Amino acid sequence: MRVLGVDPGLTRCGIGVVEGVAGRPLAMLGVGVVRTPADAELGARLVAIEQGIEEWLDTHRPEVVAVERVFSQHNVSTVMGTAQASAVAMLCAARRGIPVALHTPSEVKAAVTGSGRADKAQVGAMVTRLLRLDAPPKPADAADALALAICHIWRAPAQNRLQQAVALHASGSKGRTR
Amino acid sequence: MRVLGVDPGLTRCGIGVVEGVAGRPLAMLGVGVVRTPADAELGARLVAIEQGIEEWLDTHRPEVVAVERVFSQHNVSTVMGTAQASAVAMLCAARRGIPVALHTPSEVKAAVTGSGRADKAQVGAMVTRLLRLDAPPKPADAADALALAICHIWRAPAQNRLQQAVALHASGSKGRTR
Repeated sequence: MRVLGVDPGLTRCGIGVVEGVAGRPLAMLGVGVVRTPADAELGARLVAIEQGIEEWLDTHRPEVVAVERVFSQHNVSTVMGTAQASAVAMLCAARRGIPVALHTPSEVKAAVTGSGRADKAQVGAMVTRLLRLDAPPKPADAADALALAICHIWRAPAQNRLQQAVALHASGSKGRTR
Repeated sequence: MRVLGVDPGLTRCGIGVVEGVAGRPLAMLGVGVVRTPADAELGARLVAIEQGIEEWLDTHRPEVVAVERVFSQHNVSTVMGTAQASAVAMLCAARRGIPVALHTPSEVKAAVTGSGRADKAQVGAMVTRLLRLDAPPKPADAADALALAICHIWRAPAQNRLQQAVALHASGSKGRTR
């Protein structure tokens, strides 16, 4: 499974592409950041983010785009920009028919470090180890985007089993327990 | 000046097109709502909003797109969807090189009713009167989109004079007072 992770933001939008399946070593295919100048018009910044994400999608053709789920409880001054950048990422993926998966920051941290309250350094260290990199990707937004992609690869089997169970139940069939 | 106002929302995105200049009677060119089903995937909803707004831009070719400025202090359960829908509207406009103007809800209310704390009914009544309609546009999102467009037409001259004054000051010239 090839997943493009997006850590959304107007100033720095982290992008990371990871390939693999749960239970096997993972491979990083690319990592980077789409930046837009803080003094540019908001509309122009959203267009620049769209162009940047389109390029990443063209280059890597992911099967899934995993985006950080934004909560409004977060830092009030940045949350609107984060929501707007995430909307552009979801729009770009959905327009191509690529499924979009959302994971919360604590789900991502728990997936890669075992703790939903891990700090940035811990996430960076685990991303480095899991992808066998020489050093943690910089900036943190890039490392977070890779963590999102890893999180999706590892959570997807459980989510799929859950969806199958729900579908079985809905169709009236008797689900087998495993 | 032809302005397309957008009252952003995922379930109902209000659209209203108004033509005119400050101090003259205004004309409504169109009003409507782009709707997306609440049970659809978020990415698909954003794509549907993009398609809807693109159609309105194609039909009416506005010179400016006025979008409600979203604050994170608002209703927490809907603010993220509002931010995401507004991002799509700004993206569509900026991609075509159409300037995007943001106005807060209280600026819009103050512009059309004289009070920044007017209720929906008051805004609807004034929009009906100012555009010489037979009845208030329904739903309220459609009336709000028209109010945004009216607000922009009326505020634009003051904003332009302010920008000119700032530019004059920045260039070192001595600004004339009017």
